[in-house]
Order: sequence, then C-alpha cells, then structure tokens
Amino acid sequence: MRAEIVSVGTEILLGEITDTNSAFLAGQFPLLGIDLYNISTVGDNLNRLSEILRRAWDRSDLVFTTGGLGPTEDDLTREAIAHTLREEMKVDPDLEKWLRDFFASRSYAMPERNLKQATLIPSAKALPNPRGTAPGWWVEKEGKIIIAMPGPPMEMNYMWQNEAVPRLKSRLGGDIILSRTLKTFGIGEGSLDEMISPHLGTSNPSIGVYTRMDGVHLRITAKAQSRDEAQGLLAGKEASIREILGGNIWGVDEESLPSLIGDLLISRRLSLATMESLTGGLLANIITDVPGSSAYFKGGLVAYSNELKIAFGVDPQTIDRHGAVSPQTAEAMARAAREKLGGDVGIGVTGVAGPAELEGRQTGTVHIAIDAGTKRASFNHNYPFPRLRLKLITATACLFRLREVLQSQD
Amino acid sequence: MRAEIVSVGTEILLGEITDTNSAFLAGQFPLLGIDLYNISTVGDNLNRLSEILRRAWDRSDLVFTTGGLGPTEDDLTREAIAHTLREEMKVDPDLEKWLRDFFASRSYAMPERNLKQATLIPSAKALPNPRGTAPGWWVEKEGKIIIAMPGPPMEMNYMWQNEAVPRLKSRLGGDIILSRTLKTFGIGEGSLDEMISPHLGTSNPSIGVYTRMDGVHLRITAKAQSRDEAQGLLAGKEASIREILGGNIWGVDEESLPSLIGDLLISRRLSLATMESLTGGLLANIITDVPGSSAYFKGGLVAYSNELKIAFGVDPQTIDRHGAVSPQTAEAMARAAREKLGGDVGIGVTGVAGPAELEGRQTGTVHIAIDAGTKRASFNHNYPFPRLRLKLITATACLFRLREVLQSQD
Repeated sequence: MRAEIVSVGTEILLGEITDTNSAFLAGQFPLLGIDLYNISTVGDNLNRLSEILRRAWDRSDLVFTTGGLGPTEDDLTREAIAHTLREEMKVDPDLEKWLRDFFASRSYAMPERNLKQATLIPSAKALPNPRGTAPGWWVEKEGKIIIAMPGPPMEMNYMWQNEAVPRLKSRLGGDIILSRTLKTFGIGEGSLDEMISPHLGTSNPSIGVYTRMDGVHLRITAKAQSRDEAQGLLAGKEASIREILGGNIWGVDEESLPSLIGDLLISRRLSLATMESLTGGLLANIITDVPGSSAYFKGGLVAYSNELKIAFGVDPQTIDRHGAVSPQTAEAMARAAREKLGGDVGIGVTGVAGPAELEGRQTGTVHIAIDAGTKRASFNHNYPFPRLRLKLITATACLFRLREVLQSQD
Repeated sequence: MRAEIVSVGTEILLGEITDTNSAFLAGQFPLLGIDLYNISTVGDNLNRLSEILRRAWDRSDLVFTTGGLGPTEDDLTREAIAHTLREEMKVDPDLEKWLRDFFASRSYAMPERNLKQATLIPSAKALPNPRGTAPGWWVEKEGKIIIAMPGPPMEMNYMWQNEAVPRLKSRLGGDIILSRTLKTFGIGEGSLDEMISPHLGTSNPSIGVYTRMDGVHLRITAKAQSRDEAQGLLAGKEASIREILGGNIWGVDEESLPSLIGDLLISRRLSLATMESLTGGLLANIITDVPGSSAYFKGGLVAYSNELKIAFGVDPQTIDRHGAVSPQTAEAMARAAREKLGGDVGIGVTGVAGPAELEGRQTGTVHIAIDAGTKRASFNHNYPFPRLRLKLITATACLFRLREVLQSQD
C-alpha cells in the first residue's frame, strides 16, 4: 500500500509548531506494512490544499491528513476533500446531535460555526473523537482511502490507535515488515558504508545507515508473509553484518549506552565514579539521565583546573611531567575518581576542547582512562569537531570503552 | 518570494527522526520576508526526489533542500538537482582539494566515495561547510534559486546563518522585517499568554509565544519600509511587554543563560563552583558548553550519595536533621562548593528526580542555594516533570537565580 501524509496548517509553515504528527505516523506505518512515500505540508488555503490532495489521491492508495478539522474559517480539510472527490458536504443529524450534546454537557451553547464539524460527504464515515469536537473522516472510494484526523497530537494519537488502526488492519492483511537497528561506535558513516557495501544493494532485507548522537546506526528492514519468515531474514542479515563490524556494534534497537552500562555495573555489583575535564560534566550527566543510576553511580568531579585535579588526588608530578592533557593524567584521574569518590571503577577523561590549543596539544585531542582496579585501559583519540560535538563524542567514547572493559572481565 | 522546502531522507519517512530542519527554516523565513508555501518530505529515491524537485522548481522561486548530501549511494540530492536542471555533475578541483585536505588533516585517507561531495553542476556554487564533509549548493538559474543544505541540524543551521542568509538578503530587498526575542523563565506558557493577551491580537508588530528548553520565548516581529521604522515598532512593543513581565525576562535574541552568567562572572572577576545531586552533572555541563568557561568555572562535584556530600564538606548533622533534600542541605552544598572547590560563588542543588519518592519528599521537589560569601540566597521549587525535563528546568533555574543574585550585587 502506497501511502502519503498531508499535514495541514499555516502554523507549521510559519515555524510556530513542529509537525510531530507526521513523525508519529511515519513510525507507525511499518508495523502495519504501509509504505510511506511522501509527506506534504500545506497551509490553510483551499486551492493549494485541494491541489495537494488531488495529487495525493492520484498517486497513493492511502492518504492521511492531519489538521484543518476545527470549526473556524481557516479549517478547510473537509472542504478540500469534498472538492477533490467532487462530493457535497451535508450536516449529518447523528453527528450534529453528538456535537450539541458535547457542548450541552459542558454547559456551553454550541457556536453555530461548529456545525461544520458535523458534516460528512457521501463517501465518508465519521471517526469519533472523544478528546475534542472534531470527528475524523474515513473516506473510501474507488479502492482508495482517505483518513482525515485532527491536528492536536492528543486527539490524533487517540483516533489513530482506536479508530484508524483497527479499520486499517481489517483492510490490509498482507505482508509483515520488521526492522532491527544495530548501533555502532568508532567508525565514520563513510567508512562503515564501504565496509558493508556488498549488503547495501539488496532490497529485502534493506539496510539504512544513519549518523546519530551516539554513533552510526544501521537499520535492517525485512518484509515477508509471516513474522517468522521476516525474523529469519533479519537474523541472517544481522549475522553477516556482525561478522564485518564485530566489536563496533554496542547495542540494538532501543538500547542506549548509558542504560547498557548501568545494566553491566548492576549485574557485576560494581559502582562507578568519574573525573572529567574536557567533557565538563556531560559524562556524569548522561550517566545520571538513566532512572535508578544512583544505585551504581557514586559521583563525579568536574576538574577543569590543575589545582582541582591535584586537590582531588592527581599527583602534581604527573601533570608536571606529562601535561594535563596526557594519557598519564587521564590514568591518574581515573584512579583518583575511584579512590576519592569511592567507585569500584573510575573513568578519567581529559583533552583540549578549544577554542585555543592547550600545552601545544591541538583541539580535539582526547585521552580516556578506565581504572577497574585489577584491570586498567586507556584510549587516545583525535576528534576534529567543534566544542559541543567534541564533548558529546568524547562522553560517548567513555561509555563505549567502559562497556568494552566491563565485558572483557567476563 | 514563493518558497518551498524539500526535506530528503528515508529515515524521516520511516519515523526514525523528526524533521526539525523544516521547522527551523520555517521559523526563519518570516524574518527575511520569504513566504513558505509547501514542505515536502521524500525518501532517498532518485525518481521520486527528482519528481518533487521538478514540481518545486516549477511552482516556487526559492527551493530549499535539506539532507541527501552525504557520501553514500543513498545520498541523492545532488543527482536529483542535476537531473531536474538537465546539467552534468563534475568534480570541482578546489572542492576536491578542500575535501582531501580535510581528511589529511585528520590523518585519514579519504574514502573514494566521498569524492562525490566535491562535485558541482555549472549553475551551482559551493556553500562551505566547516562542520562536516558535505558542502552545500547554491544554484541560480532562470531567475530561480535552489539552496541545498546538509541534513545534520548542526551543519544545516551553520550553513543557513553564515552562507544562505547573507546571500538571500542581498537578493531579496523589499520590506524590512525585524524580530526580537524576549526570553523568560518562571512563568508557564498559558499564564504568560494570559498576562500579555492585550498584545497578542495585533498583526504589526505580531507576537509569537514559544516554549523552549530554557523557558518561554516571546518573539516580536515588525514589518516596515525602513529599518528605523521597524526598529521603532519593535522597541515600543518590547517596552510594553517588559512592563508586564519585568524580572522574568532574562535575555534577548541569541543570548543564552550560560553565556550571560559567564559575562557577569568575568566582569565581576568572580569564579564559580557547583555541587549537584539532582541535576547529576547537567549544570556543570551547560556551564562548560560555553567556550572560554574555564576562565571562571573552577569545577563541580556530582554527589548523589550522602557519603560524598559529607566527604566534600556538608555537615552530616545538617543531612541528619533536615534530610538530603532540604533547603539547609542545598545551602551547605553551595558553601562546600565554594570552600572545597575554591569558587567565589557556589551553587548547591538537591531534589528528588524519581522514579520513587525520597525521604518522604515527592518527585519534583527542588532546592537551590547560591552562596556568594557576603550574599546568600535559596530557592525552593516543585516541578511536576519527568526525569530529563526536571533535570533541565532545574539546571536552568540555577542559572536564572544565579543571574538574579549576581545582578543584585551591583
């Protein structure tokens, strides 16, 4: 089923609101085997909206509209659908009664302009909207379907789940589409693309490569007539990709590095402490974004200055000899984090965030050390990024490396 | 100027990411007097992308594309523009040199597939992208313009501000549209809307109200035939709004609370230190997002546990008597931050992030203390939000209150 979303509202074109409805629907369609080909956004203008709808009707099997079902003169989605299908809008007595009751139950008189929310065209059935005054429309004609839903996300989500999904399931049947995301760190998008290029040409399963905040994600999507078959396709492709990317894959689907780290620490009954200079608190912050992190995160120290590093346990001779930005200082920070903050595992991270060079080291120089008592490891990187992205990739690298160290202890 | 956005990326149609670029651009256009008529989203498919682009080219004066400029086979925006305009892509020697230098400076060999990022068509000029490997395209032909920008928001925003806006300004002329953003903290969008309701009906200047990460922003937009006239309209409206919102307005336009705090501390020759429990490092992190913050930020301690709070100078009796989540403990933390981390000003922040209650205090309880030696202040809030939003609003509140305290010392 070729589907298309038409998102209606001048407020989106003016940048006043972000169109989250389209993103929500786009994420829902694969679960129903609906292929989304286009999203169009258009303002509250009858001609332009009708033009977009006519085109959607011509090229797609399923057209979803959101917005434009309110009572005002600006709300024109019903009018545009009627115009596109050359049908006439009439007030439906049942809808009118429901609407008048809705207002009466709240002790309001119904403004007469709301009456247009009680209209239908011959091809349309109403989709109830218990969260607002705008019923949706389910329009079926010539083997195609238009589903018109209100713009407020709370109303739209409810109508989608409770009205649209059950009706669509009974119409669609057909293929199952499943997907699985493999999350990697440490390889750029271009190189990763080259490494897996033999797998990029296939269409089922297909593979998408996306750069994200926590590394590069690979999404494998498979289509089949049964769930088992789709799962088999996914598993086969995942195994091939894992052979190539091995240790760079740190997680799948909804997993996040901070949560994985938390699980690893809890299962090993270990606690964690951090001493950061470069990342300035970001590392502690993403660790503590996880609910329940207080169970394993002892605390962290943000030590920009050498005085503070020394006050909290870094040997001044280490800084003197090797510099504040050095593997040795990172290692001393990791050890100090363990000892002064009482963690079983300490992370130390130092580097040059810029804007200027530091001690002759260029911006982007990063040293990470992990000290787990019996096991120590340190890592040196050079990330050619501006300040905020540098902080983010460095904090992510700390967690990626911590995961390696924790897993290697098994 | 009739404008249109074409947003490119299968990941948007799959619901994996929300198209924030379109919303950003839509919000920028009114400032340049550009009228946005359509936003279209299309996947990484050459035929469909070319079809959408052809249509955009036919009906609009200005076409903005975002995404599809990466090095992979899926990145097809250049190809689609070339196809639409019937021009041929060729590698540009200057761009190739820049790209090879970019990789060389990072000691990487350039993957050969990245070479397509160095291509141009005869009608295109390259728009530099210092934040990534994908230069944009500025295409001018037959009195129309296509501006192709990369998909990652950091790269796109930079290219928009630094490359697209100056070129567009020199082309557009016409009415002057100016805007000014007043940034507030401490009043919800609904209440703020009511307070300034007499000002919301007017169309020139017009006012938009937007909830943002650091509070509620008010954007005043004025249109006039001269810059002076537009500025006069803005200034008049701003004065009226300031009469109503007074101390809740902390900044304007591009100002950010962490930068303002930095400026205040520098001009007063004061240094800052933090001790956080609830915010878990976020406060230190946003302070250190500011380039040059090492000049005034001494450091921070993230102390989730009572042991750590005590080890770093909080009197155990204070915690015993009043609890770890109490104004008294926040005050002791602020003092300990000053004394142990060596800051002139200390911030202490404690509270309950959930998921469960703590010491009988409910999730959302927040205590903030600021200790500047001679001047001390503490603030108690209750923010009924989930974990991440609670951390963010609390860290923002810390900076908002610090600003108040620093300014009151004048």
